Amino acid sequence: MKWPNEVGEVALSRRETFSASHRLHNPNFSDEENHRLYGKCNRINGHGHNYVITVTVIAIPDQETGMIMNITELKALIHEYVLEKVDHKHLNFDVPELEGINPTAENLVIVFWHWLAEVIPHSLKFDVELIETENNSVKYSGPHKSI
Amino acid sequence: MKWPNEVGEVALSRRETFSASHRLHNPNFSDEENHRLYGKCNRINGHGHNYVITVTVIAIPDQETGMIMNITELKALIHEYVLEKVDHKHLNFDVPELEGINPTAENLVIVFWHWLAEVIPHSLKFDVELIETENNSVKYSGPHKSI
Amino acid sequence: MKWPNEVGEVALSRRETFSASHRLHNPNFSDEENHRLYGKCNRINGHGHNYVITVTVIAIPDQETGMIMNITELKALIHEYVLEKVDHKHLNFDVPELEGINPTAENLVIVFWHWLAEVIPHSLKFDVELIETENNSVKYSGPHKSI
Amino acid sequence: MKWPNEVGEVALSRRETFSASHRLHNPNFSDEENHRLYGKCNRINGHGHNYVITVTVIAIPDQETGMIMNITELKALIHEYVLEKVDHKHLNFDVPELEGINPTAENLVIVFWHWLAEVIPHSLKFDVELIETENNSVKYSGPHKSI
Amino acid sequence: MKWPNEVGEVALSRRETFSASHRLHNPNFSDEENHRLYGKCNRINGHGHNYVITVTVIAIPDQETGMIMNITELKALIHEYVLEKVDHKHLNFDVPELEGINPTAENLVIVFWHWLAEVIPHSLKFDVELIETENNSVKYSGPHKSI
Amino acid sequence: MKWPNEVGEVALSRRETFSASHRLHNPNFSDEENHRLYGKCNRINGHGHNYVITVTVIAIPDQETGMIMNITELKALIHEYVLEKVDHKHLNFDVPELEGINPTAENLVIVFWHWLAEVIPHSLKFDVELIETENNSVKYSGPHKSI
Repeated sequence: MKWPNEVGEVALSRRETFSASHRLHNPNFSDEENHRLYGKCNRINGHGHNYVITVTVIAIPDQETGMIMNITELKALIHEYVLEKVDHKHLNFDVPELEGINPTAENLVIVFWHWLAEVIPHSLKFDVELIETENNSVKYSGPHKSI
Repeated sequence: MKWPNEVGEVALSRRETFSASHRLHNPNFSDEENHRLYGKCNRINGHGHNYVITVTVIAIPDQETGMIMNITELKALIHEYVLEKVDHKHLNFDVPELEGINPTAENLVIVFWHWLAEVIPHSLKFDVELIETENNSVKYSGPHKSI
Repeated sequence: MKWPNEVGEVALSRRETFSASHRLHNPNFSDEENHRLYGKCNRINGHGHNYVITVTVIAIPDQETGMIMNITELKALIHEYVLEKVDHKHLNFDVPELEGINPTAENLVIVFWHWLAEVIPHSLKFDVELIETENNSVKYSGPHKSI
Repeated sequence: MKWPNEVGEVALSRRETFSASHRLHNPNFSDEENHRLYGKCNRINGHGHNYVITVTVIAIPDQETGMIMNITELKALIHEYVLEKVDHKHLNFDVPELEGINPTAENLVIVFWHWLAEVIPHSLKFDVELIETENNSVKYSGPHKSI
Repeated sequence: MKWPNEVGEVALSRRETFSASHRLHNPNFSDEENHRLYGKCNRINGHGHNYVITVTVIAIPDQETGMIMNITELKALIHEYVLEKVDHKHLNFDVPELEGINPTAENLVIVFWHWLAEVIPHSLKFDVELIETENNSVKYSGPHKSI
Repeated sequence: MKWPNEVGEVALSRRETFSASHRLHNPNFSDEENHRLYGKCNRINGHGHNYVITVTVIAIPDQETGMIMNITELKALIHEYVLEKVDHKHLNFDVPELEGINPTAENLVIVFWHWLAEVIPHSLKFDVELIETENNSVKYSGPHKSI
């Protein structure tokens, strides 16, 4: 096969893991309301998860390198800009950048996307998937991309 | 990080499992045609699978709760409107709502989507993935959404 | 490193999958007793699973080939002596060799072990693991080996 | 095949999951020693995991029921005697039965085994596996069984 | 439930696996540049992976058969047009159709998509996912479809 | 619960991964014999796998630390004494310590066990599991322990 005349976008995904504690709680709600909304996720000392974060960058690969971006570099960005902040931490207490944010999976994936948006090259579209348990996960593609 | 000025849609997924039997068979076809089309899936007493159903709801999260919808509620909807009907059943004989429907993976995922469309809030887009075996799966987003 | 002077037993495992229906039912029990014992697994038309069978053979590897047995041959034995009989079948109706046997996971793994005992070389110890769902599994090493 | 004249022990396993926080810390050690030993697992507010617990009971199956024990009952015992105590809890603060115990994986699996030893029938041998992350796990078979 | 009046596209996925060696190397670059770009993936004799390829075809299912295409046929196409060429091969030396192509994951998924585009019916949209390791994967939908 | 009076052995497992190429070939055999024995695994340029190595150490945990050994140290030993030698290598050409050894899974797991036996504390029993593909794996406990 000759190399195709036209090449479209490829999605490249890198998966990393971290372990953290969190408690779902909104201080604007009463204790009863928090309990009703978040159930056992509202218990005062929190609980934890082995989170799985997968970052997918999307672009036409560079013809010379055959890569969208170096996956070693993508791995390093996820470690430096996400895992260093949250791994083996209590997300409600130990992460200044999460102060005032109720660490639901939805809120976390939005925040992680923005942390990465500052360092992933602007020419790349990207999304972030966050798996909280084997049954629960979320995905975010930024404020302007429909899913 | 301050909370972003603008927030887009987040996808929230819940995974559940059920075990069921089925037989692929279309009574409008001859036995030979059924056998040719469906092979060993056409054997008369059926066979079975551990199905995995993942429902993904898509919306901008509520700012107060930090959630698209309560995943406990999503889990309850999947149990009440899908699993209660099909878990530990023979899909060709034991499920009145499937009467007359040949239980291919494609047909099942369409039907399950419609069962859920009656109870998932109309403000949410959603899709359903159905894994039949570790090698075979289908996904459906409703009649009006291109995949 | 020189090759060690003494080599002990190595365990070699091969994993295969099949899909089947079954119904848990003992005709010696009343309907009430069957229902009480087996719950939804007793429903009359049965339900199904994607079974995973892993066969492990144990021996000192042959020095010339570096193998316990050829894993291609082990795969072939599992296909011929187990999967051919049970894949895409209803275990209560379609498998003459299972006639009169209540297809609980425990009973199945015992029977599969005996089917394989007739063809796996007698110089090899072996055990069979049978995974019924991601949460339920059984393992059997034959009548004379303690687990 | 006729049913074999002689049947040996079968191992029956049930898998459950829970999410919890913990902090590795021994109050008899200095802060420096705790940090040196436990590293990031010693951080003061703890972190968390999605633990997977698998309980395996071992016995010759009952000939009438074809079961070692009813796996529904085994599931209920794990829920009542382990998960009710630890799920969505901080293991250092929220579980009276763990008071004074440093929640390393090794210590947890020993304690869980003893909780279950009080309720699993004495005629059954059993072991407990506890998976802390996809890379770390422990297994315990009680004080008298060599692994 | 009656069958819905209107049915949209369903995505049907088939997963297959193969094992192969590769070396990342661009002969237009210096050795230093190759080493800097590809790191340990540039080592001269190559290394290998258990690749997982998942092909997803997308269309409105046929009303008579209840299928998009026969998944047995899809499996056969993947085997004949991809796995036969690459399974248990060294991708840099043993595959004439890959001659001159640096076997990065991005380049491989583009090539595999084109191999399949020649044989998958033109009425079907399709994409190809290629998993290189449990942490690295790529996806391609062809030159004209945005991801 | 008070801490039990008597504590038995706990098994602690650490899982790591590496990617490598290999070719099954015994120079003492003819080409025909090699081909007959090893099939497509005998192709001249080799193929590759994502290997998964799990090392399990077994002992009574230390009462003070609550650990068998520090899992961080176990991870470091696996990296230094196994992965550094074999990751991203061609096992037939690039690893001096494997010279003259036909890299079947059985031979590899024996060799890896011996590499680790030199550095894992002698008070610990241990075994090594090596997963070659999702369907094939081996396990070794050393020359003197029956499996």
